[in-house]
Amino acid sequence: MNANAEDPTELPTAHRVVLLSRDDRLFHVILAQQFDRELIADLCRLAEMLRGIAEARPGAQFLRTLLGHKRAMLYFIQPSTRTFLSFAAACQILGMPYNEVRDPRTSSEHKGETEDDTIRVLSQYFDLIIMRHPGEGFAESMAHMLSRMRRTIPLINGGSGKDQHPTQAMLDIYTLFRSLGQPLNERPKPDFSGNPFEGRTIAFVGDLKRGRTVRSLAYLLCRYPGVRMLFVSPPELQIGEDIIEHIGQQNVEYDTHDDLRAVIGRCDAVYMTRLQDEWDTSGESKSIDYDRYRLTQEMAESFKPGLVIMHPLPRRQEIDKRLDADPRAHYWDQVRNGMWMRAAIIATIFHVDARIIDHYHSYYAR
Amino acid sequence: MNANAEDPTELPTAHRVVLLSRDDRLFHVILAQQFDRELIADLCRLAEMLRGIAEARPGAQFLRTLLGHKRAMLYFIQPSTRTFLSFAAACQILGMPYNEVRDPRTSSEHKGETEDDTIRVLSQYFDLIIMRHPGEGFAESMAHMLSRMRRTIPLINGGSGKDQHPTQAMLDIYTLFRSLGQPLNERPKPDFSGNPFEGRTIAFVGDLKRGRTVRSLAYLLCRYPGVRMLFVSPPELQIGEDIIEHIGQQNVEYDTHDDLRAVIGRCDAVYMTRLQDEWDTSGESKSIDYDRYRLTQEMAESFKPGLVIMHPLPRRQEIDKRLDADPRAHYWDQVRNGMWMRAAIIATIFHVDARIIDHYHSYYAR
Amino acid sequence: MNANAEDPTELPTAHRVVLLSRDDRLFHVILAQQFDRELIADLCRLAEMLRGIAEARPGAQFLRTLLGHKRAMLYFIQPSTRTFLSFAAACQILGMPYNEVRDPRTSSEHKGETEDDTIRVLSQYFDLIIMRHPGEGFAESMAHMLSRMRRTIPLINGGSGKDQHPTQAMLDIYTLFRSLGQPLNERPKPDFSGNPFEGRTIAFVGDLKRGRTVRSLAYLLCRYPGVRMLFVSPPELQIGEDIIEHIGQQNVEYDTHDDLRAVIGRCDAVYMTRLQDEWDTSGESKSIDYDRYRLTQEMAESFKPGLVIMHPLPRRQEIDKRLDADPRAHYWDQVRNGMWMRAAIIATIFHVDARIIDHYHSYYAR
Repeated sequence: MNANAEDPTELPTAHRVVLLSRDDRLFHVILAQQFDRELIADLCRLAEMLRGIAEARPGAQFLRTLLGHKRAMLYFIQPSTRTFLSFAAACQILGMPYNEVRDPRTSSEHKGETEDDTIRVLSQYFDLIIMRHPGEGFAESMAHMLSRMRRTIPLINGGSGKDQHPTQAMLDIYTLFRSLGQPLNERPKPDFSGNPFEGRTIAFVGDLKRGRTVRSLAYLLCRYPGVRMLFVSPPELQIGEDIIEHIGQQNVEYDTHDDLRAVIGRCDAVYMTRLQDEWDTSGESKSIDYDRYRLTQEMAESFKPGLVIMHPLPRRQEIDKRLDADPRAHYWDQVRNGMWMRAAIIATIFHVDARIIDHYHSYYAR
Repeated sequence: MNANAEDPTELPTAHRVVLLSRDDRLFHVILAQQFDRELIADLCRLAEMLRGIAEARPGAQFLRTLLGHKRAMLYFIQPSTRTFLSFAAACQILGMPYNEVRDPRTSSEHKGETEDDTIRVLSQYFDLIIMRHPGEGFAESMAHMLSRMRRTIPLINGGSGKDQHPTQAMLDIYTLFRSLGQPLNERPKPDFSGNPFEGRTIAFVGDLKRGRTVRSLAYLLCRYPGVRMLFVSPPELQIGEDIIEHIGQQNVEYDTHDDLRAVIGRCDAVYMTRLQDEWDTSGESKSIDYDRYRLTQEMAESFKPGLVIMHPLPRRQEIDKRLDADPRAHYWDQVRNGMWMRAAIIATIFHVDARIIDHYHSYYAR
Repeated sequence: MNANAEDPTELPTAHRVVLLSRDDRLFHVILAQQFDRELIADLCRLAEMLRGIAEARPGAQFLRTLLGHKRAMLYFIQPSTRTFLSFAAACQILGMPYNEVRDPRTSSEHKGETEDDTIRVLSQYFDLIIMRHPGEGFAESMAHMLSRMRRTIPLINGGSGKDQHPTQAMLDIYTLFRSLGQPLNERPKPDFSGNPFEGRTIAFVGDLKRGRTVRSLAYLLCRYPGVRMLFVSPPELQIGEDIIEHIGQQNVEYDTHDDLRAVIGRCDAVYMTRLQDEWDTSGESKSIDYDRYRLTQEMAESFKPGLVIMHPLPRRQEIDKRLDADPRAHYWDQVRNGMWMRAAIIATIFHVDARIIDHYHSYYAR
């Protein structure tokens, strides 16, 4: 393995994943491929503990002592309220002060500085960089640059290019664990080491070509034998060939379709996404029959009783507002799950996961 | 009372006030009408205690332990530095981390999300929403929406539409309690359970039609028998008919006038406001004789000795800068009073008021 | 001395410096001239202690208890990510909550408020104002205004006009103390009470006319007998006459030149700066031969072995990227040094320096 490669993003994925870990279980968080089943289980379990501990005031106060000695930079060059606030709340839960750069116009970039230099400067002030950026592969190449500096700090990819969004995939799989086969109106008791996906059909609906959350989640699901994936989208917005190829190599069953109405009855979970026409260059979305990629109240009679309805938000018309009150709607839960999952990831990076587990077992477990 | 009304803002005010409280003394803070004399007295007393406790370092450190386990969202879609910073400082005094959404351009709204969905998402991350918004009745309708969600959090109206600004009214009445009939250069000892307004004339001057602070304060003053209100403004910018009607029903004495110079000698307090020509649609303000609505150094000889001069700020020419050094000028105090009052309101919503009172009596009272 | 002067910025510098101190060793921080050798030594020593204490978690936690009862306002009207974040991180290290005003468009200024009124309002909410502003002398005149208010709070100049940038000068001199004559790859042990500048040549290169950091640093260096300054720039961008005059009065040796290549061999430190063509009004920079003001890898063979390479950043082409890996490149260190120096300045203003020194001697010194 060539650790001195000029551009490590040119290496095969397996090698890149190893490079990112830096002998740590979790250091830079860049690709969904970094998470194996054991790490997924541990992070979900930690998120669940954080949620329980934070419920009571003394627990919340304990959590705020964990990372008060560290500082995070939220470098969010691409607009995003939701992901930004989710990470910000995660930092606050762990007591970690943070700062933000959101609008490149207020930065030094207009003075002609390269973005590499900006990131290097930030790495002098902060102990963690969380980055959302429109550049394909940018987060990964910055992670490798940081690894070569005297003062090395971890970087979390909060969404980069049209490529990957690993923390969203982690919150999605955490949400699936908490809802697939779980009781509807009670506190779930998921087995994070198990495989609730066996024999289940997860449908991904909408713009699968440009939606990076679906790509990242598909990678994670491939780790669970017996899962079935169904990609429902207009043919011109189908999921990338690279994902299909990866799924094929893992011997995971999948299918593609172009009308949700025809397949909704067989779904155990349906992951709706927005048609991202803001990326359109020549009105490609004009000819789409949106009714085929919409979940309506009328379709509810053909839902399975335990169907899990998800959406990464923001939504537009893809989900009928009348479904909001349905206990099978889990998209608001996803939002809150994201905050706990991101806190779990940050805690693990800084090695305070063991302290959280100890605290949990001392006070909450029987 | 119909708690399931589709739009509770259509109900009569008394019913709406009850709905907002949710069986709590103070839950959502939306309308000045929610505050009766007992609640006003308690909040003023708490603000006064907070101010005293914060003076010494151990006291300030005690206060910062109170709400470290909660998180606030400052959703300020309408530009405002002053009110924003006042709430932010109040959160910091109580140790409550907060986050902000100020510029809708950085939010998901450009991706076509409704503002209802945005507020619902925010309610997943935070324990309190403080909102400033240009939409008439928007804060109130969001409060009712939040009350119907599984995870219910309180909302404070930090100024909505041209309608109401209840926390500004509370800081104004707190300022009046601390200055009406109090010694000029000493620490005041106000009796918050009393009625310092009896037989006093409070003049409101300037743009009374579009200034929401005056509307809210007028509601509060109606609770104090014997107060006299004087509305001094260009006829086309006089206070709304709804306020006049409400005052009439309460048997409160009032009058209108169009020249401050003619009435300043009888005022015990004068509440100056800015002519808000930023709302002008066709240059309505052009024909106004501004001299009639201005407080000058030359008028000082006809001031009562204990006149209380107030202004919600920002000011333009309405108050002569030479009056800034006059001990009767209370507009800088208003700014600081607002911070303590807002901290008192937040502390009461989260039921830590009793802890503050206990601390105060243990350490400061004789 | 006339403490009631309408505009104290008209007074001779020595008098202005006295006025700024307000009988405190350090109150307002406005001009580099405020720092004498003893104060420089004490602040550098405190910065060094802060750095040591913060390395371990209990130390970092101790530091965060120091200023939790104070609040800072970062009033940064002039765009600057780097200086803003440096001060923000300094506040976070000392546990001081802060807030910011960065974009005057979101403030009340569009409602016609004067900036004096804005600063007065801010002084009601906060205990410290840190200001970056394009107005020549603005920070100083605001400091004097604040000194005349009932509630007086300190102000730090984070860069004002083309004039002065005293905290940058302090971090630069701290960096020089840590690198001039110090071992290259070990932890330095500088003697902050000594004079490492005696017989040393410090070259300033680039746009010396508009770069305020060089002006401020030159004032500080004049305090050290035996230092030699070399100003290398295009003739039309040479350092101001006022600085040259001041240096002359102090009997400090200096020279000017217009080609770095001819003098680099005699330099002990080289302070590179960017050609600030954003101030250009008519393309003045077009005719400059940039090669004369650039530090390249090729020049490295004529470097002295212990050359100290500095740059206030952001950089453009002035420093060859290949030099980044050279141990003599100190520009990333400058960034981090700035954070510690600013924390030292803030701690001294609020009189918690003694507590830091005590803590350091109890736990870290042998």
